[in-house]
Amino acid sequence: MANEYEGIKVEAAKSSMDMATVIGLIGGFGLVLSAIVMGGDPKSFINPPGVLIVIGGTLAITTMCFSISEVGQSVKVVMKTVLYTSRNPSNAAIQVLQIAEMARKQGVLSLQNILDTMQGEQLLHKGISMVVDGTPGEEVENILRRDIVATIQRHAKSTSILRRAAEFAPAMGLIGTLIGLVQMLGNLDDPSTIGPSMAVALLTTFYGAVLANMVFSPMASKLERNSAEETMINNIYLMGAASVGRQENPRRLEMLLNSILPPAKRIQYFD
Amino acid sequence: MANEYEGIKVEAAKSSMDMATVIGLIGGFGLVLSAIVMGGDPKSFINPPGVLIVIGGTLAITTMCFSISEVGQSVKVVMKTVLYTSRNPSNAAIQVLQIAEMARKQGVLSLQNILDTMQGEQLLHKGISMVVDGTPGEEVENILRRDIVATIQRHAKSTSILRRAAEFAPAMGLIGTLIGLVQMLGNLDDPSTIGPSMAVALLTTFYGAVLANMVFSPMASKLERNSAEETMINNIYLMGAASVGRQENPRRLEMLLNSILPPAKRIQYFD
Amino acid sequence: MANEYEGIKVEAAKSSMDMATVIGLIGGFGLVLSAIVMGGDPKSFINPPGVLIVIGGTLAITTMCFSISEVGQSVKVVMKTVLYTSRNPSNAAIQVLQIAEMARKQGVLSLQNILDTMQGEQLLHKGISMVVDGTPGEEVENILRRDIVATIQRHAKSTSILRRAAEFAPAMGLIGTLIGLVQMLGNLDDPSTIGPSMAVALLTTFYGAVLANMVFSPMASKLERNSAEETMINNIYLMGAASVGRQENPRRLEMLLNSILPPAKRIQYFD
Amino acid sequence: MANEYEGIKVEAAKSSMDMATVIGLIGGFGLVLSAIVMGGDPKSFINPPGVLIVIGGTLAITTMCFSISEVGQSVKVVMKTVLYTSRNPSNAAIQVLQIAEMARKQGVLSLQNILDTMQGEQLLHKGISMVVDGTPGEEVENILRRDIVATIQRHAKSTSILRRAAEFAPAMGLIGTLIGLVQMLGNLDDPSTIGPSMAVALLTTFYGAVLANMVFSPMASKLERNSAEETMINNIYLMGAASVGRQENPRRLEMLLNSILPPAKRIQYFD
Amino acid sequence: MANEYEGIKVEAAKSSMDMATVIGLIGGFGLVLSAIVMGGDPKSFINPPGVLIVIGGTLAITTMCFSISEVGQSVKVVMKTVLYTSRNPSNAAIQVLQIAEMARKQGVLSLQNILDTMQGEQLLHKGISMVVDGTPGEEVENILRRDIVATIQRHAKSTSILRRAAEFAPAMGLIGTLIGLVQMLGNLDDPSTIGPSMAVALLTTFYGAVLANMVFSPMASKLERNSAEETMINNIYLMGAASVGRQENPRRLEMLLNSILPPAKRIQYFD
Repeated sequence: MANEYEGIKVEAAKSSMDMATVIGLIGGFGLVLSAIVMGGDPKSFINPPGVLIVIGGTLAITTMCFSISEVGQSVKVVMKTVLYTSRNPSNAAIQVLQIAEMARKQGVLSLQNILDTMQGEQLLHKGISMVVDGTPGEEVENILRRDIVATIQRHAKSTSILRRAAEFAPAMGLIGTLIGLVQMLGNLDDPSTIGPSMAVALLTTFYGAVLANMVFSPMASKLERNSAEETMINNIYLMGAASVGRQENPRRLEMLLNSILPPAKRIQYFD
Repeated sequence: MANEYEGIKVEAAKSSMDMATVIGLIGGFGLVLSAIVMGGDPKSFINPPGVLIVIGGTLAITTMCFSISEVGQSVKVVMKTVLYTSRNPSNAAIQVLQIAEMARKQGVLSLQNILDTMQGEQLLHKGISMVVDGTPGEEVENILRRDIVATIQRHAKSTSILRRAAEFAPAMGLIGTLIGLVQMLGNLDDPSTIGPSMAVALLTTFYGAVLANMVFSPMASKLERNSAEETMINNIYLMGAASVGRQENPRRLEMLLNSILPPAKRIQYFD
Repeated sequence: MANEYEGIKVEAAKSSMDMATVIGLIGGFGLVLSAIVMGGDPKSFINPPGVLIVIGGTLAITTMCFSISEVGQSVKVVMKTVLYTSRNPSNAAIQVLQIAEMARKQGVLSLQNILDTMQGEQLLHKGISMVVDGTPGEEVENILRRDIVATIQRHAKSTSILRRAAEFAPAMGLIGTLIGLVQMLGNLDDPSTIGPSMAVALLTTFYGAVLANMVFSPMASKLERNSAEETMINNIYLMGAASVGRQENPRRLEMLLNSILPPAKRIQYFD
Repeated sequence: MANEYEGIKVEAAKSSMDMATVIGLIGGFGLVLSAIVMGGDPKSFINPPGVLIVIGGTLAITTMCFSISEVGQSVKVVMKTVLYTSRNPSNAAIQVLQIAEMARKQGVLSLQNILDTMQGEQLLHKGISMVVDGTPGEEVENILRRDIVATIQRHAKSTSILRRAAEFAPAMGLIGTLIGLVQMLGNLDDPSTIGPSMAVALLTTFYGAVLANMVFSPMASKLERNSAEETMINNIYLMGAASVGRQENPRRLEMLLNSILPPAKRIQYFD
Repeated sequence: MANEYEGIKVEAAKSSMDMATVIGLIGGFGLVLSAIVMGGDPKSFINPPGVLIVIGGTLAITTMCFSISEVGQSVKVVMKTVLYTSRNPSNAAIQVLQIAEMARKQGVLSLQNILDTMQGEQLLHKGISMVVDGTPGEEVENILRRDIVATIQRHAKSTSILRRAAEFAPAMGLIGTLIGLVQMLGNLDDPSTIGPSMAVALLTTFYGAVLANMVFSPMASKLERNSAEETMINNIYLMGAASVGRQENPRRLEMLLNSILPPAKRIQYFD
């Protein structure tokens, strides 16, 4: 597998959707919606002021805890999570080894030819570009490490914003329900309105529970998990680019890569 | 006990069921079921949409937090937990010492004859096979340690999936009940349906509480406990195989084994 | 106080009941029972299926989390807790110093005569017996330390079983109440039965709250506290036996003992 | 300020009440009581059996977790908390420096004359007394440090007892309410009694919430805060007495004191 | 940008309002208020005794946990939070570098001329003033560090007071609701008052939930976040003043500043 250097193609992880997230979201909401539809008129579950107070209120309080730009950024990060592609660390490690072997056998400048195929993997592309431009290995390593740390911090901030939102959503739901209950109890003249009023009051509790448990909380967990995986892939790219920059033996790189890969994902590129 | 070498038989831990888990499950569910049956018509506790929303919803959200393959793997791990046999670390240590003594007295190659009896204990079998094939002790140790770490990580991941499911099940139960309550409150025309509708609404809370407290949460605790026990047994096998591979004195092995055995399980094989 | 060597008598801590535990249990349950009796017919608080589902269910799930032998062992440990006698560490330290001084002045073998008076204190008895038999100080220390560690682990396991039970008892109470509510709501034909049915349904919640808050949780706290105290006493005995075995100066032993005694319990045996 | 040595007067912190605790208690209970009185007949909030079951039960269970003497001791500690006077660490540091300077200029024995003025500050009095009696500095330090550690442990024990009580009070309130509800539901014959019975049942929940949130929990927090403050003052006294005992330069003492004082409380006694 | 030394102007961070806090507060309360107004008569949500018991009670208990001056101080800190201006650490670092370069090229005394422009940034002003007055670099560093630590401690105390208040507010709300429920249940004679009485009883729960979730809890989070940001800015000022005081090369200062700036905020002032 290691001898078609001309034909090396760094396959960018396709940006297909993260199936677990999509299936989980569709499955969860599908079940809730079908329970609502089967039970009768679904319109009774739509209450625009309630939606506003729970979603808007949660957003307002969460923004209060952070800054507007931080909350805005976290929306982008969450979007990327839904579209995140789980990449195989073993494949990333093998591609990095192929690049390292090509650099060793055909010279670092030959990597220019395959730079385009790395477009999909920004960090790898940035690292190899710098190496091709003659940046020394240590500097490549420092710059990429800084990028990785910045990415981790951005993800950690977004995770904590989501966890906060998961705490505030049920609280706003409770506040909405209390408003509804107080209004209903002050108006008991017509008993026929008690039921529907109470149903409306409970809707905000329902919205809050759905938002917290079916959106914010699993999103935060998923983001944490994907951030760990992405950090590992990025560290593989960093090790590879730095190793090529330092013109080290690719066999040593393989050893280094195996030391950070999980046991089940270790590779054996050279025999 | 140490002189019938020809007759050494490594008794594989029989894959009988873990009695505590089985008794706990049967006992717990038996009590709940008998309370249901004694109270009247058990059919009123069966509500397929409710079952679907709680079990399906919990599965969907939990999947969202992880990846599909991780959730699938955890089902297998849980199955193995129910069938897990609590093995006695002392017995494992004594068997390992018998093997070590046999290797010392009759030569490593003689272990070939008893390899078959170790089929039930994969890790021991793998280690002794490598030793018989001439793999050096250090390498045997590295390979087995990697296997042990991978097993621990697999168990830890499964435990955290079960704990997550134990958090989401009651949340899905609450969401189901809120749906039922809103539907009931919107339809108070016929008072005779209030009771049964509310009963149905409460069923999802019931399902969620049963799933979380009688299945997911104890399963997670059990998995944690068994993982610790299995890790100890595996470390005993690792120590034994590595010691035979390094052709060490079995008395030294006994000392090493005693240092990781809990005080009550320490052995005295050589006098 | 240090000159009646012939008359040394190691007073075994009398196995009287732990008054705080007994008074707490009797006081707490007495108040609850009197509130029940004062409010009318106490029979309405007895519901055998409810008792079964809460106690049996909690037992079943807790067993599931551990193993049958661990749960059985914890029952014994809890029993010993109720009968536990709070011993004064200062007294234990002084007795140990008396023994050490006697050994120094009359020879180690003279301790044979007072061995019988130590029957009540197993660890001290075991340690001094070994010393009299000529076991070297280091070995006495190792063996006793192993015993102490085993005791601490046994207590820690029992504490965690009790804490688990304290979590599961209210959960089983809720499950029982939900069963009762669903049964009641499905049978609203005769309004006169609503009240009593609901009373019965609430009983399991009551049982669960009483079990968790008045039995399991305080028992776990008490066990933790007593385990710490017993460990200190046992360490005093270990230090004493090891010191006698090493034929050290008792004044040095006093210094060692004071270093582990709490400030308020420090002793001054030699002037 | 540093030249009227003859007139040094160690002002004992006046044992006035801790205003924050007193105002908080009076303010909180005042508001609750006025809400009760304004709403009608305050007698409906008095239910002796309920008071008994919540206060007595909480006391009984808390005692069960600890020992009788520990609970008794914590009552004393709590009493002292209410009467605690917040002392200014800066003032304590300056008084200690005045004493040190006086000892340096007029000799250690001259401190005899001002010993009486230190009566209010036990630890300082004990330390200076020992110094005047000729106890060496190291020993003074060891003895006072032991006293300080014992005080910290006593406070920590009392804090944990209060936190436990804050957990058990609402639990006992719930148990009392469940008893009341079961009794009421079993006796629905006369609908006119439902309201009052339910009111009585809710009273124990009310008592539990008030006890936990307005007494035990803030008391525990206050005790923790005051313990930290008292420890700092005591460390100032310890440093001072040890420094005088070692006949060190007071300027060095000032440096030491500033190293443990919070930034805003640092002093500049010598220019 | 680095050559108009005469024209250096240290732009004080404008004390405009923290938009995230203001928008969050207005947005959240706006949504709640509009839900109240849309649902009918907003007067039914105003209950002065309820407001008093929740706000006053929370204040009283929180004061009890701390001291009066600490609670008073935290009000000031919170006010400053609302008016806090998020400053850009990069800008602060560049201004500090401009000052350092000016001091290097035109002499430290020239900084006298731009001291006035630093009025808005107290710590920087204090540090540069000391440097101009000839205070050595080490002393400037020590004094400023002490100020920074004192600020951090003040913020941490205020944060913990807010978190406490966020815990006590719902508790006081529950206590208020229990008082209302007991009063209502004792007076069931006129059924037409049940609804409004219950509405009033629920109001305190509503007040408590709003106070805790929409004021205290997000304020505490915001304070924590802003305190971290302010500490970083203050450390930049400290490093700058100390560096000028030690007459170090500004290039070295740039390196130091970059080591504490987050990756995304690193600066490159010198090429």
